[in-house]
Amino acid sequence: MEENSSNEKSLAMNMNFPPNQDTVCVFGTGDFGRSIGNKMFQCGYSVVFGSRNPEMSGLLPKGINVLSYAEAAQKSDVIIMAIHREHYDFLTELAEELQGKILVDVSNNLKINQYPESNAEYLAQMVPRAKIVKAFNTVSAWALQSGTLDASRQVFVCGNDKESKQRVMDIGCTLGLTPVDQGTLMVAREIENYPLQLFPMWKFPLYLSAALCIFYFVYCVIREIIYPYINEKKDFSFLLAISIPNRIFPGMALNLLALVYLPGIIAAILQLYRGTKYSRFPKWLDHWMLCRKQLGLVALAFAFLHVLYTLVIPIRQYVRWKLNKRVIDQIKANKTEPFNTTSGWISDSYLALGILGFFLFVLLGITSLPSVSNMVNWREFRFVQSKLGYLTLVLCTAHTLVYGGNRFLSPSILRWYLPSVYILSLIIPCTVLVLKFILIMPCFDRPLTRIRQGWERNSKIS
Amino acid sequence: MEENSSNEKSLAMNMNFPPNQDTVCVFGTGDFGRSIGNKMFQCGYSVVFGSRNPEMSGLLPKGINVLSYAEAAQKSDVIIMAIHREHYDFLTELAEELQGKILVDVSNNLKINQYPESNAEYLAQMVPRAKIVKAFNTVSAWALQSGTLDASRQVFVCGNDKESKQRVMDIGCTLGLTPVDQGTLMVAREIENYPLQLFPMWKFPLYLSAALCIFYFVYCVIREIIYPYINEKKDFSFLLAISIPNRIFPGMALNLLALVYLPGIIAAILQLYRGTKYSRFPKWLDHWMLCRKQLGLVALAFAFLHVLYTLVIPIRQYVRWKLNKRVIDQIKANKTEPFNTTSGWISDSYLALGILGFFLFVLLGITSLPSVSNMVNWREFRFVQSKLGYLTLVLCTAHTLVYGGNRFLSPSILRWYLPSVYILSLIIPCTVLVLKFILIMPCFDRPLTRIRQGWERNSKIS
Amino acid sequence: MEENSSNEKSLAMNMNFPPNQDTVCVFGTGDFGRSIGNKMFQCGYSVVFGSRNPEMSGLLPKGINVLSYAEAAQKSDVIIMAIHREHYDFLTELAEELQGKILVDVSNNLKINQYPESNAEYLAQMVPRAKIVKAFNTVSAWALQSGTLDASRQVFVCGNDKESKQRVMDIGCTLGLTPVDQGTLMVAREIENYPLQLFPMWKFPLYLSAALCIFYFVYCVIREIIYPYINEKKDFSFLLAISIPNRIFPGMALNLLALVYLPGIIAAILQLYRGTKYSRFPKWLDHWMLCRKQLGLVALAFAFLHVLYTLVIPIRQYVRWKLNKRVIDQIKANKTEPFNTTSGWISDSYLALGILGFFLFVLLGITSLPSVSNMVNWREFRFVQSKLGYLTLVLCTAHTLVYGGNRFLSPSILRWYLPSVYILSLIIPCTVLVLKFILIMPCFDRPLTRIRQGWERNSKIS
Repeated sequence: MEENSSNEKSLAMNMNFPPNQDTVCVFGTGDFGRSIGNKMFQCGYSVVFGSRNPEMSGLLPKGINVLSYAEAAQKSDVIIMAIHREHYDFLTELAEELQGKILVDVSNNLKINQYPESNAEYLAQMVPRAKIVKAFNTVSAWALQSGTLDASRQVFVCGNDKESKQRVMDIGCTLGLTPVDQGTLMVAREIENYPLQLFPMWKFPLYLSAALCIFYFVYCVIREIIYPYINEKKDFSFLLAISIPNRIFPGMALNLLALVYLPGIIAAILQLYRGTKYSRFPKWLDHWMLCRKQLGLVALAFAFLHVLYTLVIPIRQYVRWKLNKRVIDQIKANKTEPFNTTSGWISDSYLALGILGFFLFVLLGITSLPSVSNMVNWREFRFVQSKLGYLTLVLCTAHTLVYGGNRFLSPSILRWYLPSVYILSLIIPCTVLVLKFILIMPCFDRPLTRIRQGWERNSKIS
Repeated sequence: MEENSSNEKSLAMNMNFPPNQDTVCVFGTGDFGRSIGNKMFQCGYSVVFGSRNPEMSGLLPKGINVLSYAEAAQKSDVIIMAIHREHYDFLTELAEELQGKILVDVSNNLKINQYPESNAEYLAQMVPRAKIVKAFNTVSAWALQSGTLDASRQVFVCGNDKESKQRVMDIGCTLGLTPVDQGTLMVAREIENYPLQLFPMWKFPLYLSAALCIFYFVYCVIREIIYPYINEKKDFSFLLAISIPNRIFPGMALNLLALVYLPGIIAAILQLYRGTKYSRFPKWLDHWMLCRKQLGLVALAFAFLHVLYTLVIPIRQYVRWKLNKRVIDQIKANKTEPFNTTSGWISDSYLALGILGFFLFVLLGITSLPSVSNMVNWREFRFVQSKLGYLTLVLCTAHTLVYGGNRFLSPSILRWYLPSVYILSLIIPCTVLVLKFILIMPCFDRPLTRIRQGWERNSKIS
Repeated sequence: MEENSSNEKSLAMNMNFPPNQDTVCVFGTGDFGRSIGNKMFQCGYSVVFGSRNPEMSGLLPKGINVLSYAEAAQKSDVIIMAIHREHYDFLTELAEELQGKILVDVSNNLKINQYPESNAEYLAQMVPRAKIVKAFNTVSAWALQSGTLDASRQVFVCGNDKESKQRVMDIGCTLGLTPVDQGTLMVAREIENYPLQLFPMWKFPLYLSAALCIFYFVYCVIREIIYPYINEKKDFSFLLAISIPNRIFPGMALNLLALVYLPGIIAAILQLYRGTKYSRFPKWLDHWMLCRKQLGLVALAFAFLHVLYTLVIPIRQYVRWKLNKRVIDQIKANKTEPFNTTSGWISDSYLALGILGFFLFVLLGITSLPSVSNMVNWREFRFVQSKLGYLTLVLCTAHTLVYGGNRFLSPSILRWYLPSVYILSLIIPCTVLVLKFILIMPCFDRPLTRIRQGWERNSKIS
C-alpha cells in the first residue's frame, strides 16, 4: 500500500494540482540534490538550484533553473544543503543571504562517528544565524528518483527551532514521506550514523551461531560419516543433505534459546552479589543483554528449519527404503513384531513436546515484531518474554531429553567415545534451567526483588 | 535495531556530546527518580534532585547533587515528579516556587481506576498555577536503568499546554524513547491505567477456549481410551500425546472461528428487529464484538497446532507400525487390495480443503497484525475480514464434513452413543453459516443495508 | 489491545470524567454526523448539531440539541462538516458566522479523483475566511458508532493553519484515534482518495498469477488426466485435488519470484543503454517496479501452499497405497532392491534446497512487513531484498533443477510432446539469473554503478 500511496500522490500532484506557491532552494546539483529537487518539483513546489557554476549543471527538468548560491538563497527561505560537509566552507561568505533562513542538512558520512561533531552541528557553527534542521539523510536518492520508496519512508528530523522543523516536516509529508520528530539538534549525530549501520545488533548472534554450527557440523561428519566409512566401509555421505543438518539445527536452536536467558541469570547473580542494581554491568554483559532479541530470533530460525527438515523425513527416499526393508525382513523372518506401548508413548510424547515448544517459540517471535511489541505494555511484555520464554525453554529441553529416551546412556551410541549431538546440546539449557530454579527459590528471590525495587544492601547514610 | 539505536545514542551522548545546557529537576530520589535522573544525566542533561531530606539520599553518580525541594525547584523549569500520589500534599507549600513550572507527572497506581480522578489531574488541582504534563509512566525504571528498552519505547504524553508538552516530548526523544502526543489532560486516566493492564481483551477468549478444551478432552478420553479399555481391555493411553490433542485442536479452531462471526450475525438480527442502528447493543454483545480479533487469533493458534500435529502423523511409531501391519496382513492373506478412486478423492480433497482453509486463516492472521491493518483502509479491511473470513469458515467446515466422509452417520462410530468429536464441533459453524446464508438473502439484506446507512424504521418526525 | 484501549477510554469517559468544557459543532445530522457527534459526546465534549431543519432530525441522545446552522455555528469555533460536497453552497450565506472558525472537512467522494480539486480545497474556496482542516474521512461511521475500531484507527489530518490542525488532532486523540499530520491542504486530494482504494497495487500481481494459474492448470489437466485417460483408459481425476495443484503452485512461486527481479534487470539495461538515470522509465516498468513487493508476497503464498501440499503427501491414501503396492510387488518378485546412494543424494538434496529456499523466502516476507521494514535503513533493506532475494531465487531454481534430476531430458516424460510443468516454469527464472550474472560482470557493473551515482554519459556542457 505504501508504494501505491506515494505513487498516487506523485501522479496526483503532477496532473491535477495547482502549482504550489512555496519555493524551495537546493544547494548543490549532485545526485541527491537533483533527485530531491525533481521530487519536490513533481510534488508542486517551485524549485531553484544553487550551484558553484550554474552553467555547467547537468540535465534538469525544464521549469527548474540554476542560479548562483547567493541568488538562489534569496529566492526561498528553505534551503536544502545537498553538499558534502567538506565543502561547507563557502557558506561563511553567504552569511548575510543565509541569515534567518532554514538550512536543511541532508548530509551523511562515510563511516560512523567520522567527525567529532555531527555535520548538522558543524553547519550550525558555520552559519550561526541560520536555523539548522537535520532531515532527509535516511532517504536514498535513487528511491526518490524512481519513486519506489518501498523501504522505510521514515525521515528523522531534528532541530532546535520548532517552526522551521515543522516547516521541513510538512515538505516531507508532501513528498510522501513520514517525518519523525527526533527532538533537538543533539540527536543529529545519531541520525547521521543511522543510515551507515548494517544490522549492528545481529553481528554477535550471527557470528556466534556460525561458529557453533561449524563445530557441530565437523562433529557430526566425524561421527556419522567418517566413523562408519572407516569401520564399516559404508558411504553415508548423502546424510550431509538432510540427516546431519537436522541434527545440527535443533541443537543450535536449543543452545541459542538458552543463551537468551543466560545473561539475565548472570545479571541477577551479579546484583545479588553486589547488593545493588545501580552499578552498571560489565560491557560484554550489557551488549549480550541488548542482543537477546536477535539471539532469540536466530534460534527461532533454526527451530523453523528443524521443523521443516523433520517433516520431510517420510518423503525421503532413504527413509522409505529403510521402512520397506524392515517390512520385507519381517516377512522373510515370517514374524510380526508386536506394538510396544512404551516406545509408542516415548515417540509420541517427544513429538508433542517439540510441537508445543515450537508453537510457543513462534508466539515469542510474533510478539517481538515491532508493531506487536509496541502494542503491549511492560507488564505484558515481561509476562510473555520471561514466563512464556522459560516455558518454551523447558518444553524444548524436555523434547530433547525424551528424544534421547531410554537409549540415553547406553554405551552403544558412543562412537570413538563421542556421544551424539543432542547430548552436547543439552548442557547449556540444563545449566540455565537449574540456575533459574535456584534463583526463584525464596531465599534468593526475595532479596533480588527488593534490590530491583531500588533497595541497596549498603547504601551509605552520611 | 531499536535497542541498538538507543544504545548507540547513550554511548554517543556519553562520549562525544557537549553537556546539554538544559537542567532538569527530579523530585524524589526513589527508584524511578534515580533511574530517569541517571538516564537524563547520561544523555547530557544536568540533573538536580529535590528530596525531603537531601542528606539521606542513596548512591547517585557524581555531578548530580541533591537539594531540598524548594532549592531544586528554582534550578530548572522542568520538574519530574517521581513521587507517589499520596505524598503530593507538600507541593501546596511550594506554590510560589512551582508557579509556571512544567510538572511532569510520572506516577502510576496500583489498580485500575484507583482514584476518582487521574493523578495528573489531582496534581493539577494541587498546583493550579503550574503546567502539568503526564508522561514516562509507561516506561519501566529497570529498563531505563539497564538501557534494555526492548519492549515498547512509546511514551504517552498528554497535557493542556502545548509548549510544555512539546518540551517534555523533546526530552523523551533525547532519552531514546518515542513520545506519542495523546492530547489534553483528559486522557491522563487512560494513560495511567495502561501499564496496569494484562491482556484484558484476551481474558474472555482464553477462558472460553480453556473451558471448551477441557470439555472436549474429557469427552475424548472417555470415548477413545476408557471405552476400549473397558470393552476390549486395550491400553490406548499413549493416544493422549498426539491423537487426542489432534482431535481436540481442530474442533477448537473451527468453533472459535465460528464464534468470531456469530456476534456480527446476532448484531444484524438485533438491528433488523429494532429497525435502527443508533441504539446500543447489550454490554455482553459489545464486549464479544470487541474481542473478535483475539478470538480469531486463538482459533488460528489451534489451527496451527492441528496442522503440526497432523503433519507429524507419518513419523509416529504407532502409525508406522499400523501401516506395516496392514501390508504384512495383506501379504499373509496373499491378496492386494485395489486402489479405490472414490476414497482417494475423499482423502485428497479433505486434505486440500484443510490446506486452503489454513492458508486463508494465516492470511487473516497476518492482516490483523497492527502494522498491516494500519496500512489498509476500511474498505480493504472489511473485504479481508468479512469476505475472506467467511470463505475461511466455509472451507474449514467443508474440510471437517469431507473428513467425516461416508462413515458420517454409520452407527459403528458411536461409542456409548457418543459421536466422534468432529461431529460436535460442526454444530456451531453450520449454524453460523446457515444464519449468514439467510441474512444475505435480499429480503433481509436490503433493509439491513439501509439501517446501517442510518435509516430508521420508526424515526419519529415531530 | 487497540480495541481495548478505545473501549477503556470510551467507558472511562462516560463514567468518571468531568464533562469537557469544549463545545464542538456538527453540521449535518446524517449518519456520519450523528455517529461522530455521539462519539464526541461520549468522550466528554458538549456537542451541538447544525441542521437545515432542526425539527426533523432523527434520534439523538439527550443532552445534544439541534439548532439552525447559524445558531449552531456561534456555539463553537470547531465545526465538523458532515455534509456532502454537493450541499456546500449554503455556506456562502454563513460567511460572517464562519469567519475564523475551524471547519473540519470529513467528506469522501464516490470515485477516485471525482472532482478537479479536493473537497477540502473546494470548501476553502467557498469559505475563504475560515480555517479548513481535512480529517476523519478515513474512519467509518459504523466503527465510531459500535466502538469496534479494529481496523486502522489512523486519521489523516491536513490543513494550512497549524493551530487549528493541532486542535483537530487533539479531538482525534480524545476519541481514541491516532491522528497523523499529513501537512498542508495540498494533500487533501490524496487523503480523500485513500478510503476508496481496494488494494490497487495488488490488482496486477493477482490478475497475472490468475492467468498463469489457469494456463498451468489446463496444461496439467491435459498432460496428467486426459492423456492417460485416452491412452490407458485410466481415471486419474482424483489428482485434481492435490497432485496437480502441487505441480502448479511451485511453478507459480518460482515464476513470480523471478518476475520480481526481472524489472530491476530491465531497468539496469535501460540505464546502461541510455547512459543516464535521470530520464524516467516507461510507465509499465514504473508500475511493475512499484508492485514488486506484492508480486513477491503472492509468490510466497504459492510457495507456502506448495510446502503444505508437499508435506501432506505421505498422509495421502493414494501414496500409501502405491508404497504398499511396491513392497508387496517386491516380495512377490522375491527380490529386494538395494539402496541407490546417488538417488538418495538427489532426493535429499532437492528437499534440502527447497527447504532453505523457502526459509529465505519467509525471511524476505517478514522483512517486508511494514513495521519491520520501518526498522531497517536503506542499506539493510537493499542487502536483504537484493542479496538475500537473489539467493532465494538461486536456491529455488536449483531445487527445481535437482528435482528434475537425471530424468530431465529423457523423452519418456514427454506426453504428446508436452514436457512436464517444472521444465516450463524454469524458463523465466533461468533467464533472469543469466541476465543478472552478465550484469554483475565488471564490464557492465562499473558503468552502471557510476550511472546510478549520478554520472551521465553525455551530460551536455554548455
